[in-house]
Amino acid sequence: MAPVGEKEDGGLYLDDLKVGQTFLSGTHALDEAQIIAFASSFDPQPFHTDAAAAEDTFFKGLAASGWHTASVSMKLLVSSANISGGLIGAGAEITWPRATRANDVLQVETEVVDIKESRSRPDRGIVTIRSVTRNQNNESLQIMISRLVVPRRT
Amino acid sequence: MAPVGEKEDGGLYLDDLKVGQTFLSGTHALDEAQIIAFASSFDPQPFHTDAAAAEDTFFKGLAASGWHTASVSMKLLVSSANISGGLIGAGAEITWPRATRANDVLQVETEVVDIKESRSRPDRGIVTIRSVTRNQNNESLQIMISRLVVPRRT
Repeated sequence: MAPVGEKEDGGLYLDDLKVGQTFLSGTHALDEAQIIAFASSFDPQPFHTDAAAAEDTFFKGLAASGWHTASVSMKLLVSSANISGGLIGAGAEITWPRATRANDVLQVETEVVDIKESRSRPDRGIVTIRSVTRNQNNESLQIMISRLVVPRRT
Repeated sequence: MAPVGEKEDGGLYLDDLKVGQTFLSGTHALDEAQIIAFASSFDPQPFHTDAAAAEDTFFKGLAASGWHTASVSMKLLVSSANISGGLIGAGAEITWPRATRANDVLQVETEVVDIKESRSRPDRGIVTIRSVTRNQNNESLQIMISRLVVPRRT
């Protein structure tokens, strides 16, 4: 990507975004192998790595790590929200109201909820977005509020 | 793991935790290959996947996806905080004050900041922890406040 604000890259600038604007992602089909592979590297707990052992746990069956749900959601967001300079997160708040399961097909709907110009850096601003990750039954698996650094047009 | 509160598994129960208690993890050495592999699957943007292209971006060099930092931090946390029934997150707030780089060695220090018994479910409570991920220079890369579901002793 180009340095912030330096040149056009076809993406949206702060000036192009409006509160209430939405982005709908494509879909990602999970499966047991993906859940176990991710969790084996990053969240090695029986309810994320072993379908049989998971039956007797809090989750009553294999569940994806919340960080796996977050990471797949990021992949979907990257391909659906074309922000100039890329999606650069300053921070996020996440809740997981429901476990993500091996047969879930994930999709992310994102809404722009706040836009603030930077006081100290006139070439950029902070855009707050709310992204809801749902499965094929329209059940919410993750709700994420995140703050992105977005360049202004020069 | 055992159903919540059903039997001992050697881990800590809500009753064993105290505000101010800390857990220090082991370390995880990142490298360029890990950063690129994670980002290729979950955050495919040039500043996370291409060291040369990353030079001309906001990050001025290859940086790990924030979700990669979060995921490695989770792995370190799982092996350092032995909670009965496992680490079951209800939600989290994350900030990334500094980019994670390819030569960083990550370590997570976690502090118990709040303990609340559940009103509706007397067999469990919610423990709020603050986890700081630092590199080998003691620079903070990630600050995460998360809420865990923790069983009480029966």
